[in-house]
Amino acid sequence: MNLMKEGWFTESSELWPGLTLSMEVSKVLHREKSDYQDIIFLETKACGRALILDGIIQCTELDEFSYQEMISFLPLFSHPNPKKVLIVGGGDGGVAREVCKHPSVTEVSQVEIDQRVIDLSKQYLPKMAVGLSHPKLKLYVEDGFKFMERHQAEFDVIITDSSDPVGPAIPLFQKNYFELMRSALKPGGIVCSQVGTPWTNLDIVCKTYKICQETFPVASYGYTCVPTYPTGQIGFVLGSLNKDINFKEPQYKDLSGINLKYYTTDIHKAAFVLPKFVEDALYV
Amino acid sequence: MNLMKEGWFTESSELWPGLTLSMEVSKVLHREKSDYQDIIFLETKACGRALILDGIIQCTELDEFSYQEMISFLPLFSHPNPKKVLIVGGGDGGVAREVCKHPSVTEVSQVEIDQRVIDLSKQYLPKMAVGLSHPKLKLYVEDGFKFMERHQAEFDVIITDSSDPVGPAIPLFQKNYFELMRSALKPGGIVCSQVGTPWTNLDIVCKTYKICQETFPVASYGYTCVPTYPTGQIGFVLGSLNKDINFKEPQYKDLSGINLKYYTTDIHKAAFVLPKFVEDALYV
Repeated sequence: MNLMKEGWFTESSELWPGLTLSMEVSKVLHREKSDYQDIIFLETKACGRALILDGIIQCTELDEFSYQEMISFLPLFSHPNPKKVLIVGGGDGGVAREVCKHPSVTEVSQVEIDQRVIDLSKQYLPKMAVGLSHPKLKLYVEDGFKFMERHQAEFDVIITDSSDPVGPAIPLFQKNYFELMRSALKPGGIVCSQVGTPWTNLDIVCKTYKICQETFPVASYGYTCVPTYPTGQIGFVLGSLNKDINFKEPQYKDLSGINLKYYTTDIHKAAFVLPKFVEDALYV
Repeated sequence: MNLMKEGWFTESSELWPGLTLSMEVSKVLHREKSDYQDIIFLETKACGRALILDGIIQCTELDEFSYQEMISFLPLFSHPNPKKVLIVGGGDGGVAREVCKHPSVTEVSQVEIDQRVIDLSKQYLPKMAVGLSHPKLKLYVEDGFKFMERHQAEFDVIITDSSDPVGPAIPLFQKNYFELMRSALKPGGIVCSQVGTPWTNLDIVCKTYKICQETFPVASYGYTCVPTYPTGQIGFVLGSLNKDINFKEPQYKDLSGINLKYYTTDIHKAAFVLPKFVEDALYV
């Protein structure tokens, strides 16, 4: 892959053809091919450090807090008392960093398939990877499917911090994955998965939302703004085993002890307010 | 300017250095240098037709409805009974198209400095330029400052659909422009101006918001998602001469007769809910 040209990294994907984002690079910090993927760490001029997997931007220091806080706190604050949390993927540690901040959470399990993403994030993205060393966290390096098969009815919240549905991540957007998550949840449990952008991939958003809706008594779709993700935003499907959960109403409102840059209880509510064309596609 | 390379158009600006968006181009429909700016109309593969002024994307058919609806209806639906509206800029006609949809609006004046943008938009962006031929609209080709000096205390709502604050558009972000708008408003009038993105230009957002706040008894900042604008979003400052206006509460709630793709009354309220880092910068 020729991703770098004249000092600029360019991201392109078959999921959003004809549209690319480029970042000016000060330094390529590291590049290698692991057993699972092509891994690049960049120092960029506009966005700080960045992690690129198989040519796709996973996070940059400029805007990662929006994604990490929202994929973590939309499900966590929708649950009245989350204690045990599972993170699938998220090898950079950013989601773990946020999840561990939640006062009621006592134990976080994280299952990431690629040891190299973990090791290299500790080296090149210490502000995110700090989550991987938190005392609440137990880190497992293996396949998320196999892990969940052994851990049934164990978690209050399961967060899937995956890459996009091309290649290896496709199974994480399918019905049997949502069923497996359901069976790994405790009663009243909640799942949250990233599901891309309605602007270029409304079909994927609708399809994944429908799967979530068929699997859980309550489902919803929310989103947040992340400038370096395609079209500048990313959405999440959420499902709950508790049919009385209203995802728009955060259950836990005292945020005073939590260090946050993006999330507020009002942002939580607003995340589920959709533009008319998305509302029409999902709910009508 | 070398904006086109190997079939792709790339947008870059000193306002967001080190970060560029590129669109694959099927056809360059037109390019010329008018008395005021470099004008390009493109047919793109991912975003439909696009208008580029001085190298910056003004609108694409993919996402223009978000910008046009929100810059129009955030101020219009914040006003209890808008009748006379002024649009400054907006030569492509998209804002005029939306403003003319509002049931109580009887007369729309639009002042655009560049006749060529008007003529070419009619030719290449007919879905937007349809607004320029609406019976409610009177179009003036001249400088917005001069126009407002002659039209004092006339308008219920003034919308400034400008380009970004580099070069010729800088005066539209300054104190004397906001004072001129104030004097062109009727009692209880409202203004709304585009003001860029907090992700790369928080300083401009804060400075312009402060000017608006010093000029009007009530001011607020809202935003919307527009994938082809820098960082995927754009914000607006709003000011009102009526100190009892709460911009978060739309005054006019019957949208049944209005054809909309983005705006809803809930989206209106959510547009003013800001991420914590923006809230902290603006309001603390």
